[in-house]
Amino acid sequence: MTTALLEQRVTLKQGGGGRAMRGLIEKLFVHDFAALPFDGVGVAAMDDGAAIRFGDEWLVLTTDSHVIHPIFFPGGDIGRLSICGTVNDLAMMGATRVVGLTCGVILEEGFPIDSLEAIQRSMVAACREASAPVITGDTKVMGRGEIDGIVINTAGIGLTRNLIRDNGLKPGDRIIVTGFIGEHGLAVMAKRHGIEFEGDLTSDVAPLNSLIAPLVATTTITAMKDPTRGGVASALHEMASKSGVGIILDESAIPVTPAVRSIGEMLGIDPLHVANEGKALLGVREADVDDVLAVLRSNLLGRNAAVIGTCVSERPGSIILDTGFGRRLVAEPDGEPLPRIC
Amino acid sequence: MTTALLEQRVTLKQGGGGRAMRGLIEKLFVHDFAALPFDGVGVAAMDDGAAIRFGDEWLVLTTDSHVIHPIFFPGGDIGRLSICGTVNDLAMMGATRVVGLTCGVILEEGFPIDSLEAIQRSMVAACREASAPVITGDTKVMGRGEIDGIVINTAGIGLTRNLIRDNGLKPGDRIIVTGFIGEHGLAVMAKRHGIEFEGDLTSDVAPLNSLIAPLVATTTITAMKDPTRGGVASALHEMASKSGVGIILDESAIPVTPAVRSIGEMLGIDPLHVANEGKALLGVREADVDDVLAVLRSNLLGRNAAVIGTCVSERPGSIILDTGFGRRLVAEPDGEPLPRIC
Repeated sequence: MTTALLEQRVTLKQGGGGRAMRGLIEKLFVHDFAALPFDGVGVAAMDDGAAIRFGDEWLVLTTDSHVIHPIFFPGGDIGRLSICGTVNDLAMMGATRVVGLTCGVILEEGFPIDSLEAIQRSMVAACREASAPVITGDTKVMGRGEIDGIVINTAGIGLTRNLIRDNGLKPGDRIIVTGFIGEHGLAVMAKRHGIEFEGDLTSDVAPLNSLIAPLVATTTITAMKDPTRGGVASALHEMASKSGVGIILDESAIPVTPAVRSIGEMLGIDPLHVANEGKALLGVREADVDDVLAVLRSNLLGRNAAVIGTCVSERPGSIILDTGFGRRLVAEPDGEPLPRIC
Repeated sequence: MTTALLEQRVTLKQGGGGRAMRGLIEKLFVHDFAALPFDGVGVAAMDDGAAIRFGDEWLVLTTDSHVIHPIFFPGGDIGRLSICGTVNDLAMMGATRVVGLTCGVILEEGFPIDSLEAIQRSMVAACREASAPVITGDTKVMGRGEIDGIVINTAGIGLTRNLIRDNGLKPGDRIIVTGFIGEHGLAVMAKRHGIEFEGDLTSDVAPLNSLIAPLVATTTITAMKDPTRGGVASALHEMASKSGVGIILDESAIPVTPAVRSIGEMLGIDPLHVANEGKALLGVREADVDDVLAVLRSNLLGRNAAVIGTCVSERPGSIILDTGFGRRLVAEPDGEPLPRIC
């Protein structure tokens, strides 16, 4: 009887990019918004953004709120993240041109102006790197203790002739990751927990549009997604279940740096489950693999691109890790191991 | 010497929609973002949104974060506000069609699910009222004490053949307000301060696109803005200074309900300085005034529309209130009297 009296409340896990979050979003938001009249790729798709036909192109629209803590971390800050996050969501839908971004900043009273200036400089630098202008914005201030420092929402619009979805994998397709995984999440975790570490462990946060756009025009990408919250495991689960395929991952082929491997082992966290902010997962037909790898590896951001898996018709929605000694199922994470990772 | 040592920090006033906020935004954000390559109406315009040419139409893009407290208030809630706020910014740029909205929700751990459901229902109802679909979104969860309950960012895209700016006023133009002023801000203040009041005082929060769109096609609007944070005084100051005109307001013509007048007097707050969420200020040529009023008054949302002022070439950037007994300058407010009003 007591459970009926317990008021249901939002949990941190529901912000973690995994199954718990998908449950909250599907139950609360998707059902009702999806019922509104709209002719295009909308909320029901739960893709990286929405898309609307505009003549012979698609207009892509996406948004992300950035609540990362700490706001300055090895390899980046909340400003760089907020530009890259939205640029990358546009790129994942196949946008070859960023039309413009919005920037909605929410500040806590007392937030240091010099930190704000540093964040702003970082946003502008990322905009230049991505050839993506911020064209409109909004500023709000909340009282002390009403918000933890700063939160930045960005939305963006882009254009493409070739819309790419996250649900087009077919059996036989190969899975490519554009580089080393787990760096963003573990760099943030190490910083937050004050873990000193010898060697390089910095976030991979970067705008991927210059890496992805050349592929969109010249090759066939069957599905694409950036493995942010919930990491590669969560993104692949979503791609596999939407596409109705299973994915067999070759563990030895997954690019992991020694730094990520050792911090991951120290913290007991699998890099497959950790957020990235400068990587993409691509589904590619077997015949196109060499062409795609060549294009990716010609760009610094993709120089460590690797084929890490193969789609199969068995066990649709499952990710199977081939360790070289046997196979095991990769669980869909319930949520990111650490909240406020992006 | 000590002032040099004082670290500069963000103040609540800088979120208030007045001069202090404009200073922060201009100094920090506009200058750098405006330097990025972009062909259209961008951040430098500091208008209600950005605009880009798309064939023979303009694509309008806008964003707003909604941090209102309390989240449920007489006449609405944060959900309704977050849809109307962005729909109205699109309408103020002349958008005659809303293509789609984004919805970025940030929740505090422990936020009650039933409140979230009520907010979601309210958002969907406002979407239907405005014929404006939410087509993509994002959900984040922050820890207890890291954010005060819920914050909602919305961005939106719309289309128009006739872009309307906030800087096109010319001497001789008349200023029209679409109805009673000050209701949103005073309703929220009364609720927050627990002021009991006999009679009706509810927020005017409403989507204005059905009111404004018919005007855009058939009449000439020289400038338009919705008087949200900082109220009519702040919006008119911005329109006047950008247009290089003065505005003489006829105090007796300004629509104010008895409820707003008495609560305003009780709190010592001028309704001219209080936020509205369902009103627009229009600049109209003398010859078009009757046509515009007829269209406005044919819609329930505009039935109390009134001509409240006239643009003059003297004192550009100033608002002069004609009280019937004499004239006085209306100061540009430094910020909204109450933070977190929208």
